[in-house]
Amino acid sequence: MDYDTIIIGGGPGGLAAAYTLADEQRVLVIENHWWGGTCPNFGCDPKKMLYSAVEARDWSARMTGNGLVGIPDISWPRLMAFKRSYTSGIPGGTKTGLNQAGIVTVDGKAQLVDAHTVTVDGQNYTADHIVIATGQTPTMPDIPGVGLLGTSTDFLDLDQLPRTMAFIGGSYVALELANIAATAGAEVHLIVHSDRLLRAFPESAVKTLIGQLKQKRIQIHENVSLTEVKAVGDQVKLIADDFELTVYRAFAAMGRSAVTDLNLDAVGVAYDHKGIHVDNHLKTSVDSIYAIGDVIAKTQPKLTPVSSFEGRYVAQHILGQTDPIQYPVIPTIVFSATKVAQVGVSLDEAKQDVTRYQVVTNNTTPWYTYNRIKDPIAQTTTIVDKTTGHLVGAVVVSTLADEMINAFTGIINQKLSSDAVNRQIYAYPTPISDLSYYY
Amino acid sequence: MDYDTIIIGGGPGGLAAAYTLADEQRVLVIENHWWGGTCPNFGCDPKKMLYSAVEARDWSARMTGNGLVGIPDISWPRLMAFKRSYTSGIPGGTKTGLNQAGIVTVDGKAQLVDAHTVTVDGQNYTADHIVIATGQTPTMPDIPGVGLLGTSTDFLDLDQLPRTMAFIGGSYVALELANIAATAGAEVHLIVHSDRLLRAFPESAVKTLIGQLKQKRIQIHENVSLTEVKAVGDQVKLIADDFELTVYRAFAAMGRSAVTDLNLDAVGVAYDHKGIHVDNHLKTSVDSIYAIGDVIAKTQPKLTPVSSFEGRYVAQHILGQTDPIQYPVIPTIVFSATKVAQVGVSLDEAKQDVTRYQVVTNNTTPWYTYNRIKDPIAQTTTIVDKTTGHLVGAVVVSTLADEMINAFTGIINQKLSSDAVNRQIYAYPTPISDLSYYY
Repeated sequence: MDYDTIIIGGGPGGLAAAYTLADEQRVLVIENHWWGGTCPNFGCDPKKMLYSAVEARDWSARMTGNGLVGIPDISWPRLMAFKRSYTSGIPGGTKTGLNQAGIVTVDGKAQLVDAHTVTVDGQNYTADHIVIATGQTPTMPDIPGVGLLGTSTDFLDLDQLPRTMAFIGGSYVALELANIAATAGAEVHLIVHSDRLLRAFPESAVKTLIGQLKQKRIQIHENVSLTEVKAVGDQVKLIADDFELTVYRAFAAMGRSAVTDLNLDAVGVAYDHKGIHVDNHLKTSVDSIYAIGDVIAKTQPKLTPVSSFEGRYVAQHILGQTDPIQYPVIPTIVFSATKVAQVGVSLDEAKQDVTRYQVVTNNTTPWYTYNRIKDPIAQTTTIVDKTTGHLVGAVVVSTLADEMINAFTGIINQKLSSDAVNRQIYAYPTPISDLSYYY
Repeated sequence: MDYDTIIIGGGPGGLAAAYTLADEQRVLVIENHWWGGTCPNFGCDPKKMLYSAVEARDWSARMTGNGLVGIPDISWPRLMAFKRSYTSGIPGGTKTGLNQAGIVTVDGKAQLVDAHTVTVDGQNYTADHIVIATGQTPTMPDIPGVGLLGTSTDFLDLDQLPRTMAFIGGSYVALELANIAATAGAEVHLIVHSDRLLRAFPESAVKTLIGQLKQKRIQIHENVSLTEVKAVGDQVKLIADDFELTVYRAFAAMGRSAVTDLNLDAVGVAYDHKGIHVDNHLKTSVDSIYAIGDVIAKTQPKLTPVSSFEGRYVAQHILGQTDPIQYPVIPTIVFSATKVAQVGVSLDEAKQDVTRYQVVTNNTTPWYTYNRIKDPIAQTTTIVDKTTGHLVGAVVVSTLADEMINAFTGIINQKLSSDAVNRQIYAYPTPISDLSYYY
């Protein structure tokens, strides 16, 4: 064998696996596109670089009339330069980092040959184990003119901000990018084929977010299923039954599909449209082949830290650890016109079992913490398992939802009682020093 | 007895005790000044209301050239109105809240008569237990012209921002208020009698903060011991050996002294210049009399959440719990030109015992989290007990020090190993999703 382990895909999952294995193994990583993968190149990281200017501007705007005078504007070209100051170093830095750790890197599109062989541009590489970490790619609608649509990748690298634009889809990506564009000054439309955005989040929280999106003058068109896209001069016309909208740019943000064009059928790796099938050791239907990250079919959210967690796990498993993978609770968050976050037992599940769960919703808008930053709306729902008294889930809508959901995540993981939370002392006044008021 | 418990002082400590007792006892609270106490009326809460505009403005300023155009200005009268929108409701709201909980309130200056009797304006009140929670008051220098100096209380309620001002002292209050004033546009001087500001914090962290204070053009005058203050027209002249400075307003911020003018000597309650002496049940030298909060002599920092903690404890003790008080680790923070925070084992202590403690300092300025918000300087020191592998202390200097120090506080309290931290998944990318990189 040429290597102990070959990893196909140099994103967060593949990299976590590679670095964990590198001390003890000969490791090869193959990447056909952007070293570092989606997250740092055209995903969560650059998105939140753009969001930094949005957050700073929004806070200043909220404080206008409350101590501040003058709202800063977003300069898109400068914001894009700020983003590129980060992203431009990612592919080279990633590859250099791997090589410095003694990990071999190959550029190109990998195809499986057999259970232990991968080929890239006609060159074969063999290994005891193969880890597939190819991730996902944006889903495009199957309609005429689809080639006129961009994706989140295109949006995140726009040289100029189009005066008008549309996002097609009700995904978190659509809601995050729409907010950035609208705050930067564009006229923004959201085109959603149903009347339900962000299906993974509670309807009440989504409603609150929609209110904030509308405050940003984002126009939401529900129950619109596009049938065609046409070029009209330098604009695009989006067409559905009884619907037409012409904008400078339109972006598909309908979700993402697993990258499975790796000759999986020939080698016998089972998969479907949701991704590659794995067992609770992240092993595929072929004994020597694992899959991790967004490419696998799973119930866990497809997020960067989950991929990293799986990468570390699969490396430990290859190195001899035999326990099945055990996920901690996984918080999810949308960084949009406000932030919406949740973790643990879902609100729907809790509401369906009122004998077991106590659900408490606080409108925290008037609380000191939120009043201090003039947060326009702040809500937190906690879910406590009555049998243990432990917090088991939370939903947060507010500008501070990221900080709060991480705190709730820690409390859930540590199985802290409400008494135990009350016995701690935190820096005051901070969002976290409110913890004892929530449940 | 008229009451089960009389509490002297309606600040955070007294209120926590009163509310905890109220379900089971007849409780009287006596307050001679501002219901709610220092923190919400002229302490941490209004200070951080003013800081909100400072934080928003600073973030916008940092993003200028990185996506934002135009730095908002602070309008002092509007900022003061914002602060007063909060503080104006505190005394009335506090008293109403107490009364609604069935707690009796009396306005006036309390004096002890004997172990079970308090007098206010000639009226005696008796109880089984008395809790002294009178807090502290600003320390004034013993020099001619001291009456020309203001205090933090005056600063926090200024109708107009003086063009020039000085803060006398190197306390955290001085550094917090100086930063607010400078960011709002005033010429600000800090006059410190030694060459060491913020003695409770590590010298390295303080040096970093001083660099940021200087960026805000705050002029620091070290080793200056004022000997006199004189009025010069509508300004004040601050005079020391070989030093003179004339400013529109000057504020003493040299620390605070325990309020002990309660006839303690006559009743036999022991105290000294540091405060009232208590045992590990917060009991004074008189069996029926307790003391809590900033008025007591203690090694713990005199902070609002510590007073609340003691208030809850003393109530439980009065209600029959017999365990001595056990403090958790207590984080402290300075909200200034950057934030400086620490928790747990001190850096000095750790450096003196290198066989026991592992000290790791990360310059996190280039990390994604801090680069994203263009934090000019970010440093974190972690202290791990080598014998257990547990985090036992941390020092953080950065714009995000509040969020980070709270997270480290939780990890210390929960005695989480580094592995346990790595097995958690947090919302990404957030400051907390960096936790596994720190130690």
